[in-house]
Amino acid sequence: MHADFLRQTIDLACDNVVNGGGPFGALVVKDQRIIASSGNRVTQNIDPTAHAEIMAIRLACQSLGDFQLTECTLYTSCEPCPMCLGAIYWARLHAVYFACNRFDAAAAGFDDSFIYDEIPKLPAERCIAMHYIELAGSALPFQAWKRLESKIRY
Amino acid sequence: MHADFLRQTIDLACDNVVNGGGPFGALVVKDQRIIASSGNRVTQNIDPTAHAEIMAIRLACQSLGDFQLTECTLYTSCEPCPMCLGAIYWARLHAVYFACNRFDAAAAGFDDSFIYDEIPKLPAERCIAMHYIELAGSALPFQAWKRLESKIRY
Repeated sequence: MHADFLRQTIDLACDNVVNGGGPFGALVVKDQRIIASSGNRVTQNIDPTAHAEIMAIRLACQSLGDFQLTECTLYTSCEPCPMCLGAIYWARLHAVYFACNRFDAAAAGFDDSFIYDEIPKLPAERCIAMHYIELAGSALPFQAWKRLESKIRY
Repeated sequence: MHADFLRQTIDLACDNVVNGGGPFGALVVKDQRIIASSGNRVTQNIDPTAHAEIMAIRLACQSLGDFQLTECTLYTSCEPCPMCLGAIYWARLHAVYFACNRFDAAAAGFDDSFIYDEIPKLPAERCIAMHYIELAGSALPFQAWKRLESKIRY
């Protein structure tokens, strides 16, 4: 079953290349039924976050009317990059299956493996420097959040 | 200047809580001018990827008509989570400034620090297990991509 769904992500990725997209495809499956699918749409959507996994997760959430996908499985033609890995945790998917890995992606010219290597570095020492600036009042949003009784946790 | 923009992300995050969103705000700045801003819209948009940084990056790309933001700086009320960190690399931002860190986010009930801790684990041993399945034909999308002369690299 897992191999069948993965084969569909490969077909989706191949079709996506023919249609001007990147060589990636992803499916979200619930109760053995596909509820969302997408290829990579970065260049067509002018959106660097439009990876196949992100798009499929967003579509699945719209389909279920829920910002969590706890009973769903993600199938993807390639190991999720750190951005998509983060999205998988925020969506609280049940499990993930993938057919290629980050090194295959790197060999095809994509930065997945490079970004994984950047993560353990100190923020200010990354290739894209990330600077922490101490600021009076920086805790105000979290304080407001903690006080708010009507909040929707996510 | 950096502190001024960061103060605006804090204001944005506070306003966002009042308006039913999460306690995070982000700005994209080009030539010292704000070209995009957003609070966290996960629950309102039913989209677990709608973090403030992701939203601001998407809006900035739409505004510039470009899927890369090489001359832009991201200001965010809190250290980017791994998902947003990945998006920052894919958007190729120039630099990032943040006012709170992942431990502040964890103390407020958010999984940022937890997700960072999951990344170095072997995929199949993560809390959300990620399984690599070898599949005949898995390289076909990358092969099609390499052959395609008209491709738009991203």
